[in-house]
This record gives sequence, C-alpha cells and structure tokens, in this order.
Amino acid sequence: MFTLEKESSFGRRGQLLTSGGVLQTPFFMPVGTAGAMKGITHEELKSLGAEILLCNTYHMHLRPGEDVVAEAGGLHDFIGWDLPILTDSGGFQVFSLNQLRKISDEGVTFRSHLDGTELFLGPTESITIQHKLGADIIMCFDECPPSTAKRQDLEKAVERTLLWAKACKKVHEDLCAKKTRHSTPFLFGIVQGGLERDLREHCAQELAGMGFDGYAVGGLAVGESEAEMYDVLDALCPLLPKHAPRYLMGVGRIEQMRAAIAKGIDMFDCVLPMREARHGTITLSDDSKIRILNAEYVHDHSPIDPSSPSPPSRLHKKSYLNHLLRSHERLGETIACMQNLGVTLESIRKIRETIDSSDE
Amino acid sequence: MFTLEKESSFGRRGQLLTSGGVLQTPFFMPVGTAGAMKGITHEELKSLGAEILLCNTYHMHLRPGEDVVAEAGGLHDFIGWDLPILTDSGGFQVFSLNQLRKISDEGVTFRSHLDGTELFLGPTESITIQHKLGADIIMCFDECPPSTAKRQDLEKAVERTLLWAKACKKVHEDLCAKKTRHSTPFLFGIVQGGLERDLREHCAQELAGMGFDGYAVGGLAVGESEAEMYDVLDALCPLLPKHAPRYLMGVGRIEQMRAAIAKGIDMFDCVLPMREARHGTITLSDDSKIRILNAEYVHDHSPIDPSSPSPPSRLHKKSYLNHLLRSHERLGETIACMQNLGVTLESIRKIRETIDSSDE
Repeated sequence: MFTLEKESSFGRRGQLLTSGGVLQTPFFMPVGTAGAMKGITHEELKSLGAEILLCNTYHMHLRPGEDVVAEAGGLHDFIGWDLPILTDSGGFQVFSLNQLRKISDEGVTFRSHLDGTELFLGPTESITIQHKLGADIIMCFDECPPSTAKRQDLEKAVERTLLWAKACKKVHEDLCAKKTRHSTPFLFGIVQGGLERDLREHCAQELAGMGFDGYAVGGLAVGESEAEMYDVLDALCPLLPKHAPRYLMGVGRIEQMRAAIAKGIDMFDCVLPMREARHGTITLSDDSKIRILNAEYVHDHSPIDPSSPSPPSRLHKKSYLNHLLRSHERLGETIACMQNLGVTLESIRKIRETIDSSDE
Repeated sequence: MFTLEKESSFGRRGQLLTSGGVLQTPFFMPVGTAGAMKGITHEELKSLGAEILLCNTYHMHLRPGEDVVAEAGGLHDFIGWDLPILTDSGGFQVFSLNQLRKISDEGVTFRSHLDGTELFLGPTESITIQHKLGADIIMCFDECPPSTAKRQDLEKAVERTLLWAKACKKVHEDLCAKKTRHSTPFLFGIVQGGLERDLREHCAQELAGMGFDGYAVGGLAVGESEAEMYDVLDALCPLLPKHAPRYLMGVGRIEQMRAAIAKGIDMFDCVLPMREARHGTITLSDDSKIRILNAEYVHDHSPIDPSSPSPPSRLHKKSYLNHLLRSHERLGETIACMQNLGVTLESIRKIRETIDSSDE
C-alpha cells in the first residue's frame, strides 16, 4: 500500500496505492468541504495538479447526509471526482464549530450549525458514516483540543483519542469484513498530545501498537509557534512507523510544508490558501505574497503572475483582479483561489523533484 | 460592416465585421456587468460559444472608472477578452437602479448605488466614457421608461432620446475624427416609444434619417405581454434599415429570441439565464426547465443534462447540483450558470443553422 522509495535530508518520497488510485508522496490535499472547491470546477482542479480531495464528514453528514451519498454510489460518484478522496472524522468541526457540546467516553453531543438539531458523533458513528461516504482514506475520530490547552485537558484528550482509535479500528474491521463496499479504505490513526512531548510519544506508541494504515499528527497549527510545532515533529516522526504515510493535519503554508517534509511528513491539508485568496492575499510562484486589494494595484496592469501554474493568472492583470475583488465579482475569487492553490500544488511537486534528484 | 447574407421566414443571417472581430448574426451577448461573468472564466465562456461580451458602462464608470480601463489599454486588455465587446450607454441603470434622479434635456443627475455620490450622465458623458472604455459597439444614451408608462411620458422620452441620439452622434464623430482610438467603434441608435406604435415609427424613422451603424429596440421586456412585444417588433422591423443590424435589448428567453429572429432581429442580450441559474431554474438542452432545488432532485442521481453543451452538466448529477445550491457552494452557481448560458448560446447557433439550411 505505501512504498517508501527514498529518504533524504529534504524529506521522504513514496507511493501510496489507494483504492482510488496511486498517489505520489509528499502531497497536499485541497479541502472541498461539502464536496466542492469554491468556484473551481473539478477539471480546473485537476489541471492545477490536484490528485486527491479532502471532504469533511461533518458537513456531508449534515447535508446531504451519508445515505444520499451512498445511494449515489459513494462520494466519487456523487461529486464526480475520479481521483482519491480522504474524509476527516468530523471531530475537528464538532470540537471547533460547536459551542454547545457534551463530551463523554462514548462521543460528543452537539448541535448542528445549520438548524440547531442535537446530534451525536462518536467513533462508531464517524467510521460508519465514513464507510457510507466511501472515501479511499478515512480518519479515526479523535478529541482535538488546541495545542495550547492545559496539560490535564491534553492528557484526557490523549486517553479518549486512544480509546476511540481502538473502537474505530474495531468498527472499521467489522465493516470491511462485511464487505459493505467493493474496496477497502485505509484507516489512519491520529496522534494528539499538544506540545507535551511525553503525551505525544505515548499516543504515537500506543497507536503504532494497534496498527493503522497511516498516522496523522493532529492538534497543531492552532495557536502554537512554528518552533513549537517543529519540536513536536522532531520528537514524533522517529516514533512513527517508517513504512506508513504520515499526515500533518491543517498545515498548508509552503515554507512550513517544506520544513515538515524534511522532518518526515508525507501528507498535508489546509484551507489557508483558499481563505487567503478570498481575502486578497495572493501567493506568487516565487513564494512571495501580495495584498492585491491594496491601492497600488488599481493601476498595476502587469500580469498577476506571468509564470503561474494557473492560466487565468497568466492572462489577467493585477488591476483586473483588484477590480473584481473590490466589486465582489465571483470571478475574482475563482482567479485568486486558482492562483493560491496552483502555487501550493506546484511547490509540493518541486519538493518531490528536489528529493528525487538529491544525491544523498 | 454588416453583410446581410440571407432572409427567410426563420429570420436573417448576416455577418457583422467589428473592430474586435467578425460576428455571425443572429447572436446572443452574455452580460458581464463589471467585466466578468459570475464564476465563469473567459476560457469557459468561449468554450460555451460566447463570441461577444456586453459590459455595463454604468458599472465600469463607477468602478474602476474609465480612466483606469483606458490606462490598461481599453476593456479588451483590462478584462483579458480578445473577442468583440459591446457597452451599453449607462442609461438603463441610471433610470432603473437610482431612485434619486433629476432629468433634464442635458442628461440625468443621479446618485451612485455604491456610495451615494451625486453624478451626472448625458449623451456627451456617455459617449466619451464609452470611447475611453474602448468597446467595438457602443450605444446612444437614451431615456428608457417601461413600455407600460403613460403616453405623455413615452412621448417625452422619445423626444429626449432623439435629441440625445443627435448629440451622441456628434460627440462620437468628433472623437472618431480626433482618432483618440486606433479603431472606430460602431454606434447604435435606440428606438423608444413603448407600446405606442406611432411613437415607435416616428422614433425609428428619425434615427434612420440620422444614420447609425445599427438600431436597437429598447424599453421592451419590462412588463408588457409577449403579444404586445411582438406587435411592436412587427410594426418596427420593416421600418428599420435593412442593411444594418437590429438589436432587441434585454430579451434572452430562447422561445422569445426565436420569434424575434423570425421577425428580423439580429442581436440579443439578457441577464435572465444567469439570474434563473442562481435561483436554481435550469434550462435543459431540450428547452425544458427544471427547478433543481425541488426535493425530488435530492435523490435524482442522473446527469444534470446528458446532452448539454456545458461539460460539468454532463459530468455531474442532479443530486449534486441540488446539494451544492442548497449548501450555497459557489461551484453550484458556476455549474448552473454555465448550463443556462451554454444552452442559450447553442439555441442561437441552431437557429443560425436552421436559417442557413432553409430552402426559401
């Protein structure tokens, strides 16, 4: 399933053979929350180099519901995406979007952000929903406090995360045995523990003992410093099974991905490139950023990014993008999102090439 | 400039040689208000068969302003569109968007819908702005009451429209003589007169006497019945110069365009296909309409339109489009708008083929 092909000081290169296709690692996953990427068509997404899409279980569960998706033949058929898909567990949204929630060892009671309905999500529910959605990689349901939470909260979260990981694996294996799907998804465990090194180590070792198809690092990029995040990765990566993919959740800044890859991470996802684009922060193909809404761009008729991997950024002027975003014209968001996503995906491709061509 | 190639009971076929390229008539113009078509890229627009874009002078004047556009090299360069462009006069927006306005024989004082600034637009201003914007076809500034207005208001509007048409032609010729642009745009006159046949006839004859590059029919499709609209066209078309293009403003329903073409109209524009799309009314390629937000489509996993000219409508399911629009995902609007626009443009292509292949 995962072939580690090369290790170098720049990072690891490998291939992940999923039920939905082969993925070259390291890779970045665009986040198509409700099964779509803002105003970008699937064809455009692929032309920018997207090879896998992340969909949010929480959002798909609320609307249209996993039964509608299953009835359509699963997520690939429902959204018309013929490359791999990863679904998260729903945990992050339940813990971060919802004020009204009650946590027990069985799971979380919360209210829908759409209509306030009381709902419950635990390891059994999350894995059952994810199997119905039919992604190629699914995630364990975890408790994910911010990295800056108090030690006793982090301790409790690690214990619950391990309890739930065990439950998730059991439900997953039962569903796989029942062959409710024609293909078997990979199940990834998630390491919690905040910035507490011993908790991270304990969590990683316990998960490795249970045995998962891949391992994610959760609860980072949520308030700690870059140095603190890298410290966690330095401590953690050597403890994670070498021959399984490693996924750093919620990280998408190019320089941070480059550093994390060098430390041994293989997978990333992040909404940041799109969020920045919508607010007018454009990443150019030399990794520099510009605030396209600034007054100086009203009269800047040079191309947005002449060497961009995104065609509209080569065609269109900075002044036009400034105008579109100021006028709240949806094409502005499309151009900006395609630019930031294209540059992010191209950066990862270049890192793969760097690893491939390194002499170590 | 305009070559009338064929007349039949289905309509006229011709070629319009503009400074921006050759156009096959009859044609439909998508309305890119502020220089963009919602979430549709220019490349997608062209792939759907768009050959000319309409931009609104009122919107471009307010933001970014004609001087910024001129500085960028004109509208084609500013928005990155290398096919013909038509700009309207700004009159329609001034008369319909703005409550606070004062009309005199010199023009209209009104307030910006953006920030309330008091502004003035008359024939001189409109033509000067349009020359700066640099479209291939520009329109006379006209007074456009609804077709259902009182006779005395329609009379007054026709007189002003004729007065302004004369002024527009003078300003246009002066600017052309000064060669402020490397190419000369076509100037179209606009016939007003509501449903009053004698006023329409008077207006048409006076405009034809002044001599314009093309003639538009304004003030229709704003409240009158279809039969009343067709009556006006029946009376008017025989009075318009045969060897000039005829433009029915604001009409975009496929069946209405088909009827109007049979009566001798060559050009159309309308925001309706896009407005309907955004609200979930989808026109299929057999001209039928479906309300995609209806509950029945939650579970309808068939393609949106298997023989659609728009690729996403062939790829995606009705249930997915229903989900995207219910979830306010921008991709839903993009798919819906591309579908309605694609079908509209294809219908006009088919009408051209019908005229070409008719034996009359």
